[in-house]
Amino acid sequence: MRRIIALITDFGESDYFVGSMKGVILSINPEVEIVDITHSVTPFDIFEAGFVLKSSYVYFPQKTIFITVVDPEVGSERKILLAYYKNYYFIAPDNGILSLVMYEEEESMIISVTSSHYFLPKVSSTFHGRDIMAPISAWLAKGINLSSFGEPCNNWVRLKFPEPRKLDERIYEGEIIHIDRFGNLITNFPSSFLYTEIFENRKGIKVEIGGKVIDKFTKTYSEGSVGEPVLVFGSSDFLEIGTFLQSAEKILKVKKGDKLRLYFL
Amino acid sequence: MRRIIALITDFGESDYFVGSMKGVILSINPEVEIVDITHSVTPFDIFEAGFVLKSSYVYFPQKTIFITVVDPEVGSERKILLAYYKNYYFIAPDNGILSLVMYEEEESMIISVTSSHYFLPKVSSTFHGRDIMAPISAWLAKGINLSSFGEPCNNWVRLKFPEPRKLDERIYEGEIIHIDRFGNLITNFPSSFLYTEIFENRKGIKVEIGGKVIDKFTKTYSEGSVGEPVLVFGSSDFLEIGTFLQSAEKILKVKKGDKLRLYFL
Amino acid sequence: MRRIIALITDFGESDYFVGSMKGVILSINPEVEIVDITHSVTPFDIFEAGFVLKSSYVYFPQKTIFITVVDPEVGSERKILLAYYKNYYFIAPDNGILSLVMYEEEESMIISVTSSHYFLPKVSSTFHGRDIMAPISAWLAKGINLSSFGEPCNNWVRLKFPEPRKLDERIYEGEIIHIDRFGNLITNFPSSFLYTEIFENRKGIKVEIGGKVIDKFTKTYSEGSVGEPVLVFGSSDFLEIGTFLQSAEKILKVKKGDKLRLYFL
Repeated sequence: MRRIIALITDFGESDYFVGSMKGVILSINPEVEIVDITHSVTPFDIFEAGFVLKSSYVYFPQKTIFITVVDPEVGSERKILLAYYKNYYFIAPDNGILSLVMYEEEESMIISVTSSHYFLPKVSSTFHGRDIMAPISAWLAKGINLSSFGEPCNNWVRLKFPEPRKLDERIYEGEIIHIDRFGNLITNFPSSFLYTEIFENRKGIKVEIGGKVIDKFTKTYSEGSVGEPVLVFGSSDFLEIGTFLQSAEKILKVKKGDKLRLYFL
Repeated sequence: MRRIIALITDFGESDYFVGSMKGVILSINPEVEIVDITHSVTPFDIFEAGFVLKSSYVYFPQKTIFITVVDPEVGSERKILLAYYKNYYFIAPDNGILSLVMYEEEESMIISVTSSHYFLPKVSSTFHGRDIMAPISAWLAKGINLSSFGEPCNNWVRLKFPEPRKLDERIYEGEIIHIDRFGNLITNFPSSFLYTEIFENRKGIKVEIGGKVIDKFTKTYSEGSVGEPVLVFGSSDFLEIGTFLQSAEKILKVKKGDKLRLYFL
Repeated sequence: MRRIIALITDFGESDYFVGSMKGVILSINPEVEIVDITHSVTPFDIFEAGFVLKSSYVYFPQKTIFITVVDPEVGSERKILLAYYKNYYFIAPDNGILSLVMYEEEESMIISVTSSHYFLPKVSSTFHGRDIMAPISAWLAKGINLSSFGEPCNNWVRLKFPEPRKLDERIYEGEIIHIDRFGNLITNFPSSFLYTEIFENRKGIKVEIGGKVIDKFTKTYSEGSVGEPVLVFGSSDFLEIGTFLQSAEKILKVKKGDKLRLYFL
């Protein structure tokens, strides 16, 4: 069975960056299957890369190797991590990307990559995706043992996921953590948390954002009228604000990071 | 020989949507070859998705499976179709996408997908591309029989292709059905129809659009001067208006859906 | 071992162009691995396509076949080239793209493609990427001999790479040849040339561009402050001007083709 190497970067689609990473991987290990998840992460946006990784990795076959490169400090002393977590492998600069995935730390094994004989012979100081992370992934897929790539590492960078904040018995403050291509607003309220309140404790909810109130909770976007914002459990398992056939982002004039309030009725 | 699953969506390049569909497919059937046709269909534009599918599918190996997802009514009662037509397989929501391809209906076999044991265990109400269509394609590629996925279906949604309208013995009204990346304007006049009139019946043609007249019919864009709109038989087998080294869209200031008149001289 | 066909085009991501090329390749030769380098070359920008090709091809396995299509004169009398150079194969219209790669000409073998029995049965006059170059690549990957595809060709189109111009013993005029997704400005000063002067001859350098002087030479972008332009040896082996976490393009308000002066101190 072919091993899969899946890529998430902020390299864009128009440069030689992604192509040369793929070339390096296939030169070392022509048998792997390379899968593009996205190369359109907002430049330098570590959180966004982590969010895409967190929302997609569980759908891949076990043992898939994910390279996630958003790396503004490339070439500096920041470490490069190689982690094994829940039967998947993750390669990324040590800037917090992986912490959005590996929050149950006891299950993970993390290496700080130092074994330079697995790197390209000439390592640039501005493109470690091509010169270090791509070859590491290809050698790993060839069967080289995790521990061969460097030293165990415990003090890696954690990013704090922005949890909702309880303001009152029935009021929470949350925020927009992602806006997708359709303009759907992904909040930081996990569906699982709301599920209990709504379906077991029979509470209604409403959301206040940008001076507007949204109180229609639906199963699908199309239960709203065209252009009417509704509350939906989204496919990334967070509460979303979406609108049928239009962009909730444009209708509500909000942006990533904007705060919202959730009320249990 | 590896089976091919080809994807057309409006999911964009920057989210976890496409990546998780690929992960699901490869988890079920690691032997398939996944080919991206495009993920940049204009959001919610069913016709555009159908046009891309219609213009590309015949170039693929027989038995290729096409998943085409533009699905504003995801999660509602709209059906999901699985069709076998001219030795290809097509999976899409039942909103008209497939009708642009399957207009010779007698040759097709169409299933309304209902066999939920082939879906992901947990089906969201906002992402059937990942939770239903991706796994169906992977199982189909594994050899599961078409009829195992649901019930035969006859009353599926047809979209009317916008045919040219005859106004007079020598005047037709048509429209711009697509504008490509170069700004070439694709009309709804099939090359085959014009071919007879121009090359057999020796008629000249001219086109009137946005107050301008274009009467230079050429084989290539570069036969026009830089920025001069010319009439060309395009690669999708429709009459196009294009300009050498520039965008006809910008020069003529037109948009998709705009009407034009074609005169036989 | 699977043969690789790698694609560089200006076809964009949203049309049927790339998808139908892939379909054609896989119909003829289902065993190849198709790799997208980029489809987002600026429309008609031959130099940019050549730069991406030049900056990526050496990272691929030997015998990789590169199809590079920026082809404003498609359908005209311009030739289509198939070249073997340094153990790689290159297919492109004869408009200068390949000259940025094959400057050591004695090592190359170049064919003008004329053997139409390897083309698609019906060749359009506006899409030779699909109808000629894709099938040629697929037959080549199947083992058909280079010389079977046409006649040896010596008078192919050369583009002049814009070399820096010496103005004075210590002053050179150069230009911005590429701007990447992060807004890094790639100049035409090869790192190798500067390396000798800076590290062996111990000279300092400064650059003047758009009325600003940049004299901080660093190993990484992040050695500068946020938004401070620095001089860096980039991953394409040219001197770059970049800024930590921001776009040098926006900060310096420059564009591709703008001149700069380099001073040895």
